[in-house]
Amino acid sequence: MAKIICVLYDDPVTGYPKSYARKDVPKLKCYPNGQTVPSPKKIDFKPGELLGSVSGELGLRKFLKSLGHKLVVTSDKDGANSVLDKELADAEVVISQPFWPAYLTAARIAKAPKLKLVITAGIGSDHVDLAAAIKRGITVTEVTYSNSISVAEHVVMMILSLVRNYIPSYQWVIKGGWNIADCVQRSYDVEGMTVGTVAAGRIGIAVLRRLKPFDMKLHYTDRHRLPKQVEKELNLTYHSNVESLVKVCDVVTINCPLHPETENLFNEKLIAKMKHGAYIVNTARAKICDRNAIVKALKSGKLAGYAGDVWFPQPPPKDHPWRTMSHHGMTPHISGSSLSAQARYAAGTREILECWFSKRPIRNEYLIVDGGKLAGTGAHSYSPGNATKGSEEAAKFKKVK
Amino acid sequence: MAKIICVLYDDPVTGYPKSYARKDVPKLKCYPNGQTVPSPKKIDFKPGELLGSVSGELGLRKFLKSLGHKLVVTSDKDGANSVLDKELADAEVVISQPFWPAYLTAARIAKAPKLKLVITAGIGSDHVDLAAAIKRGITVTEVTYSNSISVAEHVVMMILSLVRNYIPSYQWVIKGGWNIADCVQRSYDVEGMTVGTVAAGRIGIAVLRRLKPFDMKLHYTDRHRLPKQVEKELNLTYHSNVESLVKVCDVVTINCPLHPETENLFNEKLIAKMKHGAYIVNTARAKICDRNAIVKALKSGKLAGYAGDVWFPQPPPKDHPWRTMSHHGMTPHISGSSLSAQARYAAGTREILECWFSKRPIRNEYLIVDGGKLAGTGAHSYSPGNATKGSEEAAKFKKVK
Repeated sequence: MAKIICVLYDDPVTGYPKSYARKDVPKLKCYPNGQTVPSPKKIDFKPGELLGSVSGELGLRKFLKSLGHKLVVTSDKDGANSVLDKELADAEVVISQPFWPAYLTAARIAKAPKLKLVITAGIGSDHVDLAAAIKRGITVTEVTYSNSISVAEHVVMMILSLVRNYIPSYQWVIKGGWNIADCVQRSYDVEGMTVGTVAAGRIGIAVLRRLKPFDMKLHYTDRHRLPKQVEKELNLTYHSNVESLVKVCDVVTINCPLHPETENLFNEKLIAKMKHGAYIVNTARAKICDRNAIVKALKSGKLAGYAGDVWFPQPPPKDHPWRTMSHHGMTPHISGSSLSAQARYAAGTREILECWFSKRPIRNEYLIVDGGKLAGTGAHSYSPGNATKGSEEAAKFKKVK
Repeated sequence: MAKIICVLYDDPVTGYPKSYARKDVPKLKCYPNGQTVPSPKKIDFKPGELLGSVSGELGLRKFLKSLGHKLVVTSDKDGANSVLDKELADAEVVISQPFWPAYLTAARIAKAPKLKLVITAGIGSDHVDLAAAIKRGITVTEVTYSNSISVAEHVVMMILSLVRNYIPSYQWVIKGGWNIADCVQRSYDVEGMTVGTVAAGRIGIAVLRRLKPFDMKLHYTDRHRLPKQVEKELNLTYHSNVESLVKVCDVVTINCPLHPETENLFNEKLIAKMKHGAYIVNTARAKICDRNAIVKALKSGKLAGYAGDVWFPQPPPKDHPWRTMSHHGMTPHISGSSLSAQARYAAGTREILECWFSKRPIRNEYLIVDGGKLAGTGAHSYSPGNATKGSEEAAKFKKVK
C-alpha cells in the first residue's frame, strides 16, 4: 500500500454547489504535434467537471482505492505545520498543480524518505528541487502538452486586452459612465506591431501561430532554432539572444521555463533595452521577471502594460505589489487550468499512475527526471538547478473569501 | 462659406493632459482586400494622437479654416436644446462617429434645409435615417474599412475573455484573494469549439481568419455566399439562415449592419434555439439584440456570456440593464476607435472633405447614399429603412466623472 498526497486548490466560494457555464468540453484526439492526448485505461470523471480542486480529487479516489492505496487530498501546503509537511514522512507519490504548487525543496525532500514519484498535473516542475530529486533518484513527471494550448490562448487574450485597453474600458461600463476618450487614449490595434516570444516551444509557437493572421510581425529567441520551414511558414525573425529581441518588440511574451538561466532575466537592465511603451505578457513563471523592476517600469511608462497569471509565491500575499501596480491585467494562476485543460491533465495523471503501479514505462514525453538524471523530451527545457523555495512566503497568504 | 458640424466625444477626465501609452502607431499601406488606406493630400495631425474627441477635432480645424469654412465642434448632441439641434439650421455637413452618434432622424433632417453631406468618421451609418437622406438627395458617406480590423481584434479579444472567464478572474487579483476554483469553474478553452458569424463582410471574415489557428470550427451565414476558395481556405460551413447557424454554435459573433431585417434579430425566440451555455459577442449594433431577452438568457444560464461594445442608445443611461447583467464583458463603444483607427478615419474624413470641396468624386467605396439612392459598394450592406431614433433616450444620460 502506497500513500499518495494530492495537493489541490480549494473549492469555489461562490456559486457552490458548482454551477458550470456549459455541459461539456470539446473532445480532442491529439495535440498539434501529433502526440495523442492522455490515454488512461479508464477515467472516473466527466470531462468538464471541476477536477483540480479538493472536492475534484483529480478524479483519482476510486481508482487508487481499488488498488488498495491511500489518497490524502489537501490544500494545506505551506509552512511547517501544513498537512503536506506532516504527511510527507511516509508518502510515495506527491501530486500537485503549478497553480497551487507543493513546493518540494531539498529540505522537504530530505524529510520524505519514501518519496519516489512526483507528478505535476499540468506543466512546469520548477516547484520541485530537481537537483535534490536527481540525487535521491526520485522520478519527476508532468503531463506534457496537456494545457499548452490553454496557456497560448490566455497569452493572446492578454496581449489583445492590454494593447486594446480592455479592462479599464469595461470598468467605465460598471461605474455607470461613458468616457470613450478616456478608454481609447491608451487603446491600440495589434495590427502591424512587432511581437516576440522568449522561447518557441509548444506554447511559444502556438502563440505565434495564433497571432499570425493579426498581421503582427513575429519574432522569437530560443536555445534551439526552429526548422527553416516553420520560420518561413510564419515569416519569423530569429534572435540569438533576448537583448536583441526586446529592442525591436512592441509586445514581449515569455514562454520559457524557469531555471537558473532565466531566473530574474527581465530585470531593470533588460527592461531598459525595451522600446518605450512596450507590453509584457508572462504566463511562464513569475521569477523570470524582477518583481520591483516591473512595478517601476509600469509607473514610469517604460512599460505600457503587464499581464500574466504567474506569481511568486503562489498564492501571493494580499499586499503583493503586482495586485495593485499600474496598467496590469493579471489573473490568478489559471491559464492552464481551464475545465478543458483539467480533463486532460487529470487523465494524464491517471495514465502516469496506472503505469507506475503496474510497472509499465511512463511515456517518455512525460518524464523530467528519471533514473537519477534529467530525462525524456521534457528535460530539453530544464537545467538541473534550483529555483524553488517559496513555501515560507506563501504561508503568509491569508485567504480572502 | 459652409458650416460643418463635427459631433465628437468628450475629452478624457483622467490622465489629462493626455498621456499616451506609446509614441506612435504602426504604418499600414493598404487593407487586406488591397484597398489603399485613406490618402488625403495632407494631414494636420500626428498618427497616434487622440483625434476623435472634442479637443482632437479630427485634425480638421486648420484645413477647413484655410478654405474659409466654419467648423463647429461639439459633444452636445441629444435633446431639443442641444448644440447639434441649434446649429443644424444652416449646416452643410455633419460629421460624427458611431461611438458618439449624431442621430439624424427624419425630423432633424427636415430642420436642416442646407444639409448636403453626412460623414460617418468610422463605419455604420444607421444613426442616419437613410430613407430621409435619399428623399432629400443628401450624400451619406463613411470611411469604409478604416476600423474593420480594429473591431475584428476586439471581437476575438472578447470571445477569448468570455470563454476563459478573464474579467472575473482579474477581479480576484484586485480584491486580494486567490480562488482558482472559483475562476476556473467557468473557464474553457476555445479550441475545438464551434464559432459562427452573422455576416461575413470585412469584419466577419477578419474574425474568422483570426480564429482559424485556434482550431475552432468556423461557420457563417450571410446574404451573399463567399467564394468557394475562401470557404475552402478557412474550412467554413455555410448556413443559409441564422436559425440554422445558432443551433450548432458555441460562440456567435454578430457582424452585420443594423437595418430593418436585422433589428431585434436576436430575440427570445432565436435565443431559445441556441445551444445551452453559448456566448454572444456583438460589436455590430445593439438593436440587433433584444435588450431584455439578453438579460434574461444570461440570468437563466442559457447564455454563458455576452460581450460587445454597442449600446442603444449611446451613451446608455446609468441604469441600462446591460451595465449590470450577469457574465457580461461590455465596453463603451470603443472597438473601432483605437488610436490606430482614429488616425485612419480622421484621414479618411479629410479625404472625403477634400473631394467634396474641390468637387472631385468621393471614392466609390465610401458612398452609402448618393444621388437620391443607395450607392457605392457600401450600399451592399444596407436597406433603405429606418432604424435610428435614440436621441431622446440618450439625452437622459447623466455624465459620470
